Amino acid sequence: MNGKPLQSVKVFAPASVANVGCGFDVLAFAINGPGDVVEISRKEIPGVVIESITGDNGKLPLIPIENTAGRAVLALIDELEHSPDFGMKIRIEKRMPLGSGLGSSAASAAGAAVAANAILGNPFSRKELLQFALEGELAASGSPHGDNISASLLGGFVLVRSHQPLDVIELNVPKELVVTVLHPHIEMKTKNTRLILRRSVQLSKAVTQWGNVGGLIAGLYREDYDLIGRSLHDEIVEPARAILIPGFDEMKETAMKTGALGFSISGAGSSVFALSRSIETAENIGEALGKVMDTYNLAFDIHISEINTQGCHILEQTEVST
Amino acid sequence: MNGKPLQSVKVFAPASVANVGCGFDVLAFAINGPGDVVEISRKEIPGVVIESITGDNGKLPLIPIENTAGRAVLALIDELEHSPDFGMKIRIEKRMPLGSGLGSSAASAAGAAVAANAILGNPFSRKELLQFALEGELAASGSPHGDNISASLLGGFVLVRSHQPLDVIELNVPKELVVTVLHPHIEMKTKNTRLILRRSVQLSKAVTQWGNVGGLIAGLYREDYDLIGRSLHDEIVEPARAILIPGFDEMKETAMKTGALGFSISGAGSSVFALSRSIETAENIGEALGKVMDTYNLAFDIHISEINTQGCHILEQTEVST
Repeated sequence: MNGKPLQSVKVFAPASVANVGCGFDVLAFAINGPGDVVEISRKEIPGVVIESITGDNGKLPLIPIENTAGRAVLALIDELEHSPDFGMKIRIEKRMPLGSGLGSSAASAAGAAVAANAILGNPFSRKELLQFALEGELAASGSPHGDNISASLLGGFVLVRSHQPLDVIELNVPKELVVTVLHPHIEMKTKNTRLILRRSVQLSKAVTQWGNVGGLIAGLYREDYDLIGRSLHDEIVEPARAILIPGFDEMKETAMKTGALGFSISGAGSSVFALSRSIETAENIGEALGKVMDTYNLAFDIHISEINTQGCHILEQTEVST
Repeated sequence: MNGKPLQSVKVFAPASVANVGCGFDVLAFAINGPGDVVEISRKEIPGVVIESITGDNGKLPLIPIENTAGRAVLALIDELEHSPDFGMKIRIEKRMPLGSGLGSSAASAAGAAVAANAILGNPFSRKELLQFALEGELAASGSPHGDNISASLLGGFVLVRSHQPLDVIELNVPKELVVTVLHPHIEMKTKNTRLILRRSVQLSKAVTQWGNVGGLIAGLYREDYDLIGRSLHDEIVEPARAILIPGFDEMKETAMKTGALGFSISGAGSSVFALSRSIETAENIGEALGKVMDTYNLAFDIHISEINTQGCHILEQTEVST
């Protein structure tokens, strides 16, 4: 137990960009915003309840086991040697849209795991929390994909080398990397965007893909921005999903012309992202992408961010009054 | 033109281990030995001839365009602005077996490109020579695979991110890495070992594979030997090819028990390799693998080597007498 016991903890859990072009189901990075806020407070009677969820238009379940945040907390408590003699109530503020491809459910699960851990006096390390957050994600996606979870929880640029057993590698983050995210207001469900993927891929395309994954990771360590850009190609998933995103090809062309290192779909979409080397370029890209969206008469949000290397962080905490 | 013109140049071109477990067609590293020796001397009449080949049991063609070394030299000369006013004769000493999975044809092509370049006063950089050596490999394999070529020519641990256009990345080489190579005396033709591969792979296996490629490359940069070991798995190519190598499963189990970080097929086989962290462990692995081979009554060679970071190097050179 570190320090005094806490009565309540409020955690910010950042959005994240998964897949990152070539790294379907294995690569992701966190951004500074948007993100969810998860607050957990002690209650007298043991057990977990979800007190409130805002910003979800009533779409998310309040039953803990069916909710990503609730299920993460339950999984964490399950792993304790001794059950706590108090309960936890969870308040979730969804500050990013559902189904936007920015790891919304993952952020809630990661934030809940970090908040519950803090309330309990941090019995688990950040990396140990991954398994609980992942268990939470199961409630939303039906299958565990650790990419968004790992990025939101740990921050930075992560590689999920393996899911069974879970093996998450925190990669080097080149200092100049900036991301432009554009979220067109269309909701996509990860479950559905998975269904449109073919179950098998050509060996030759798979080889191209793992060459690019290798190139991207080497580029991150060498801080070789050109190599990062050359590696940001996805021949397998992007072609299947891009057709669901209005103006995708036009946005990609525009981003590349405006100085992007690379451009692809964020997670399963509908958000798209571009990497570049400066805030100024990232803003120019955002502006240019916005103009493309305008021609489609689609509402959208734009987020400009460096890679968030902090992950989930505590916004506020109150100690138990004695 | 650097220094005095050369009359003859003798180059050592190292063997190499391609694929390296998970990195089919994209990863390779060079070893200190065995390797081929390619000597190129000036002759008065322009044109390229192959004067002699030793160590190939008469199997390799003496017609330059059909020979990997000859074709590499022809491709290099083709790219010169002005054809040289002298010719070149090539002597090849095959000091490693053909079809052994150690990049024999690649070594001859790489060595020939380096020797020809030296004779011409080094008009091309090492990286520029890749394309000529690759053109040479076409003579042997029918399709260009830059992995062995890049490792033999540049040395170290290389990633061929892309073949079209050629994009070769020289990766970090962790200092303690040692390799044990066992070559059972069975010849395998790359063309044939490619035919047994299925043209398509399951998406889930492809994801596992690119997770491992990413993990291996991150491991090389972090000098994280455990991560390198965890990533050395091939779920796609190894299972198909391992059945062609007597005692493969037994050797793998033995190597892992003897302290190997990982074990897989070198290139298309028949050679196998194990990575470990010390010469002593590498030698123990070699001894243990040899005992397995003995039970199969198969002759074999064992090579223990650090990663060769030098690539092709000049053994001897003589200046033009004036």
